[in-house]
Amino acid sequence: MFLDKLDWRFATKHFDSAKKVSEEDMHKILESIHMAPSSFGLQPYHIYVVSDAAKKSELRAAGFNQPQFEDASHILVFCANSNVKGRVNQMIETMGGVSEEFAAMLHGFSEGLNGENAKGWAARQAYIALGFALAACAELGIDSCPMEGFSNGDFDTILGLDSNLSSMAVLAVGYRKDGPAHPKFRFSNEDLFTEL
Amino acid sequence: MFLDKLDWRFATKHFDSAKKVSEEDMHKILESIHMAPSSFGLQPYHIYVVSDAAKKSELRAAGFNQPQFEDASHILVFCANSNVKGRVNQMIETMGGVSEEFAAMLHGFSEGLNGENAKGWAARQAYIALGFALAACAELGIDSCPMEGFSNGDFDTILGLDSNLSSMAVLAVGYRKDGPAHPKFRFSNEDLFTEL
Repeated sequence: MFLDKLDWRFATKHFDSAKKVSEEDMHKILESIHMAPSSFGLQPYHIYVVSDAAKKSELRAAGFNQPQFEDASHILVFCANSNVKGRVNQMIETMGGVSEEFAAMLHGFSEGLNGENAKGWAARQAYIALGFALAACAELGIDSCPMEGFSNGDFDTILGLDSNLSSMAVLAVGYRKDGPAHPKFRFSNEDLFTEL
Repeated sequence: MFLDKLDWRFATKHFDSAKKVSEEDMHKILESIHMAPSSFGLQPYHIYVVSDAAKKSELRAAGFNQPQFEDASHILVFCANSNVKGRVNQMIETMGGVSEEFAAMLHGFSEGLNGENAKGWAARQAYIALGFALAACAELGIDSCPMEGFSNGDFDTILGLDSNLSSMAVLAVGYRKDGPAHPKFRFSNEDLFTEL
């Protein structure tokens, strides 16, 4: 149950580098990403799944030397795809054609999105998928750490990204060596919610 | 189980307006949002939980007349909080003080984020929480529809948002009247993932 693990999960700083996530569990985590919803179903993102030790070491060097990049079993790098027009065409082709109405809506939407707006929109969709991956890990009893503290430009170079892709966030997954160093802080419900 | 519901869930277009989500289940959905991770734990967002019929009708009018805004049991509006400096001060105060090192890191981070960058960063954090709420709904067998198709400015006015808040996305929650009109489309794993 995901909902029973909300407090159990935490941003794991120290992973046990000897413990690897099984292929079966990795498949489940990736499936949650695969099935996550996105605006118009365009899934404007690509995820690099890094388990190679040398590559993880390069990521660590570009990530303020944070040990999670090396000690975690797998590093998922969520990249936004800002070529929305290309994604629309690819979707229509993959679906083997869509209704004229839906095609017009998709084209109209993508034409209204350019530059930073396109990247921002794509990144937000990627963060829904990041949320799904976090939820999947929690349900499976797998530890994880969402991370934004790295040089995006260096990551893009290390991963050899096409110019339409930008690394936005990482989810390090594996097994905790230590529990949380501090109790979990959250703002109150009164702070976060207004009921109308 | 969340992972068993990945295919069951879909962006519900037609909600049964007679069926309301129980207070107990709403509490669980909001708790998933409450406990969702965010960068530095700053939770730079606020969520409006709208069940009032008149207010939902106003949202529908500002949302291209999409019926979900009225027929769903509850409308959650995720708003990004772009006043990151204010949020940092509030966090430090709420925690009753933090180490000098952590305070310096938080202040340095917030000073580097301004205008659209602050809003974009805050919105991305909100989308992790949106992912958690989607996962919670699926696990509970509650239908939902994530929506970006509305006039953000009109929503901000209807909700009476402070200037630091911006409505970004909606999650309509309730119970489906009809199943999905089309099979779910997703890009292939080959398209979405690269293993290194």
